[in-house]
Parts: sequence; C-alpha cells; structure tokens
Amino acid sequence: MLYLIGLGLSYETDITVRGLEIVKRCKRVYLEAYTSILMAADKSSLEKFYGREVILADREMVESGSDQILENAQEDDIAFLVVGDVFGATTHTDLVIRARELGIKFESVHNASVMNAVGACGLQLYNFGQAVSIVFFTDSWRPDSFYNKVMENRKIGLHTLLLLDIKVKEPSIKELMKGRLVYEPPRYMSVATCCEQLLEIEEKRGEGAYTPNTPCVAVSRLGSPTQTFKAATLKELSEYDSGEPLHSVVMLGRQVHDLELDYLLEFADDKDAYKQAVIADQEFFKPPPPPPQPIDEDEYSD
Amino acid sequence: MLYLIGLGLSYETDITVRGLEIVKRCKRVYLEAYTSILMAADKSSLEKFYGREVILADREMVESGSDQILENAQEDDIAFLVVGDVFGATTHTDLVIRARELGIKFESVHNASVMNAVGACGLQLYNFGQAVSIVFFTDSWRPDSFYNKVMENRKIGLHTLLLLDIKVKEPSIKELMKGRLVYEPPRYMSVATCCEQLLEIEEKRGEGAYTPNTPCVAVSRLGSPTQTFKAATLKELSEYDSGEPLHSVVMLGRQVHDLELDYLLEFADDKDAYKQAVIADQEFFKPPPPPPQPIDEDEYSD
Repeated sequence: MLYLIGLGLSYETDITVRGLEIVKRCKRVYLEAYTSILMAADKSSLEKFYGREVILADREMVESGSDQILENAQEDDIAFLVVGDVFGATTHTDLVIRARELGIKFESVHNASVMNAVGACGLQLYNFGQAVSIVFFTDSWRPDSFYNKVMENRKIGLHTLLLLDIKVKEPSIKELMKGRLVYEPPRYMSVATCCEQLLEIEEKRGEGAYTPNTPCVAVSRLGSPTQTFKAATLKELSEYDSGEPLHSVVMLGRQVHDLELDYLLEFADDKDAYKQAVIADQEFFKPPPPPPQPIDEDEYSD
Repeated sequence: MLYLIGLGLSYETDITVRGLEIVKRCKRVYLEAYTSILMAADKSSLEKFYGREVILADREMVESGSDQILENAQEDDIAFLVVGDVFGATTHTDLVIRARELGIKFESVHNASVMNAVGACGLQLYNFGQAVSIVFFTDSWRPDSFYNKVMENRKIGLHTLLLLDIKVKEPSIKELMKGRLVYEPPRYMSVATCCEQLLEIEEKRGEGAYTPNTPCVAVSRLGSPTQTFKAATLKELSEYDSGEPLHSVVMLGRQVHDLELDYLLEFADDKDAYKQAVIADQEFFKPPPPPPQPIDEDEYSD
C-alpha cells in the first residue's frame, strides 16, 4: 500500500495522529523535499519525532525514479510525505497514476496547505479565483502568463493567491558547464521581489490588471510560530522586508466584504490609508449599471 | 488564549498531533457542530479519544453566546474545534474579532478541508475558480445566485467546487408555529439533488452556463474510509445514488489538462463517453482566435 501523507505547514507535530500512526508502521518513508519545506522542522527533527529513518526524495527520484519508491509496495506499506496537503503538486498525481499501473493500492491522509490555510488572513476562501505561481525572473526569462490570470480574477472581483517560487537543490549552470554537478544554495522568493516583478509586468503590459495602489496582503510563515500578515498596497509591499521564508501574497479583488476588511485592518500600518485603497480599488472592473428599463409600449398598445 | 483547531474531515485521529496536545491541556473544549460534521466520529467518540469533556457549540452559542465561549480566556486556555479547517465559515472570523476586542490572544491549528482535499479527485487546485454553495430549494425559495458565479468561472475555463447544503439542528417551522421548539432531523444534500437543482436553474435561466452534458465529478465522503469519486455528466449525476453524506460536486471548466483527465477517467463508468463529454465541453466559452495581424504599412513607408 502507498500512503500519501500531508505534513501540514510548519511543525513536526503538524502531522495528523492518523498520519503519524501510519508513518511509524511503514516499511519505508520518503520525504518529498523539493516543492516546499516545513518551516519549523527538517529531516533530522522528523526522524527524531517519528523514531525512524526518513529517505529524502528529490525531483530526480520522484520524477524518474518512482519505481524505486514504489518497489514492492504491492506487499509492503510505503509512506510518501508531502509538505502541505497531498495533491499540491502535479508530480504527486503522477506517482499515484504510476502506482495504479503497478496494481498498488493507495490512500491519502490530508492536511492543511496554503490553499486553505490562507483563510487565516481574513479573506473568505470562496472569494478566491485561480491561484498563480510567480517564478524568479532571470535576465532572459521574465514570464508574464500570471498577468492574464490575475486580470481574469480581478475582472470578476475575486482575490488571487500568488504562490512564490522556491528553488531547492537546483544545479548550478556555471558548474554544470565545467562538467560538475554542484547545487545552488536554496532560494525563497520574498514578498518584495514578488511585488517588484508584478509592478514591472504591469509597467510592460499596461492593461490595468492592477495598479501600484492595489491592496494586497503579505502572508509570511503561515502556520509557523512567527506567522505574520501585512496589509498594504502592492507598491508598499515592493519595499517590505518580509523576513524569513516562506511567503505568499494575496491580491484583493473588488468583492471585499465588510467583515473581511475589518479583519484585514488589524494587519495594516495605516488603517485609514488601507481602507481608502480598498475603496478606490473597488472602482476597477465594476460591472456597468443596468441599462434604464424602457417602458414596454407593447404592453399599452395591446 | 483561544485556540481554533481544525479537525480535518473524518476520523478522530485526523486532528494533528499539535492540535491534540492543545486539546488535552485546555480548560474548556468546544466543538462547533452546525457548519459540518466529522464523518467517522461524533462527540462521544471524540471525548473518548481526547480523554476529556467536549461541549457542543450550536449556532446560537457561537453567534450570540460567544462571550460564554470566551469567558476568562485572557487567563485560561480555551479550544474551539472546527470540522475541516479553521476559517471555513465566517462565524469563526467573528469569534476571533470578538476575542481581539476582549484582549484575548489566539492561535490557529490548521487542518485539511474540502477546499484543498478536493484535489484528491485529480483536478489541480490552481485551476479552480470561486467556490459556490448550493442550498436546499423550498417551494418558495429557489435561489440561483450560484448560476452567475459558475458562469464566471466557466467563461475563463475554471473548475467550480459546489458545496452542498447541510441542515443540522434546524428548528421545525411547523412546531414553532405551535409555540414549540423542536428540531428537524439533520439533512445532507445528495449529489442527485444538487444536480437536479442545477438543471432546473439552467432550464429557467437558459444562458448556457452549463448543459446537461457538462462533465462533473461527484466527491463523496472525502477523506473517509468510504471516499468515492464518480466522473459523469451533470445529467447522469442527477440520477446518481451517492450514498451516505457528505458530498460535494465539481463542475469542470474548459481548461482540463491531459494529466487531470487521465486521473479522472479512472472514476468514469464509461471512459470513452466521459472523454467525449470533456472534449465537447471544451468548445464552450472558447476564446476567439486572435485576429489576423495586418501588415504594418508604416514599417515599409518609413
């Protein structure tokens, strides 16, 4: 049996009781270690907490070596641990499809992920549109496909969750060219970098998906002991020091309910200014007023 | 301190290890018991598992009696348990705002909820638009505000999560008129009822947000031992026996990736027919092809 087990966001103890029971009895336990990280735990603290060995599974192992992970899983119980919830990344869907092909049963043990825990910032989850990924720009690669998606969400008044890039165990191109496999130190996108990139793309595209004054919320270290929210405009967040990773950003949509705003104001340095930014932003993408109803002359002429 | 603790979806053991530690040491423990239910546990099984008393908090207590819940929480640790994740319902935001006013610190312990665990059906979470609630129709109240939201999602190709109504501890109107407070037995909307209501509203509105042939996925008892997915058209699901609660439905959007479809087909009775329904549905709301690029004559005349 293959068990996909979500680890939640931060602590060793964010695993569920059911998840922990399964981990303890499995023959092999893999930790997926490249799409996200636990903020208050690592491989060795997990091993100590579980009282057993944990095998790190990097991208190569999961994407090319899944048969190694699944070896003998028809007979043995194998656990595959994922930070957040189980189905956050497509690679895990791939693993389950492969397990099916090999006739291996599987079960998931769900947990919190940024996709639902972001509700802690006070914005209602059912007012979110599609989530988008913001990747690190390079000199030659500055992709802006997120822009249309943000525009689509904002046109219908919805909030957008921006998931910020992380680079873990990326081979150094420079070293590769010298024929050596050396990994770059991990990099985690900050709130400021994300917002700078957004401003650059708005500057370039100029279609008004958002402005420097669009209200946002920086979500830092969600679910960790140092969790922090900051409600500010996009421009302000492009200069914000968000501290240690991980971060996400929410860009607000027009549909902000009073209760949502009340809750958010607690996280604003200047409550009045933020409230004004929210009110001003509600003018964008406003649906046109209904046309005046013409008197139906037929009704009288009949 | 007020602790809001998510319980996850089904088992007593779906609570996180950290959540359980907090529950064990709190002075009072409330269980919010009207926005959802745990599928494989109840108050008494939770009490047994926690080794302590749990107080049921119904709508009246949470919405009007929050000061009772928060009594002395400046000094004592109080736990408020929520099925799924902590911020699924606005009433919990209210409770936190009230705690803030009273100078009570609070912390959340997140968990899985349908909003992220629905990824288990194989559809990618970042391709979902806004979620909508489908409430039980009555003779005189057949609200269709969900229709515009589904239309908005489908216009931009996104999937829609439909959250189905549950009625727990609803006073009987008939008995109230006789001056007696008697509660109706709990009711949980089935997949068939949801889909019938959707078809009725499409019939009435006729704006083509979806058709009887639109591909959907019925999500039943998500995260429980009897979890079941069924991939079928809206019309087919309007005749589907989904069994014991709880249920949700996902209506697909145009943007279905090959990997998503591969995964879904496992849940279809007739794989070919479902695949054809997905392909046919992709014709709806297709963006128009880009206009032919006129030759820029200026480039030549300069």
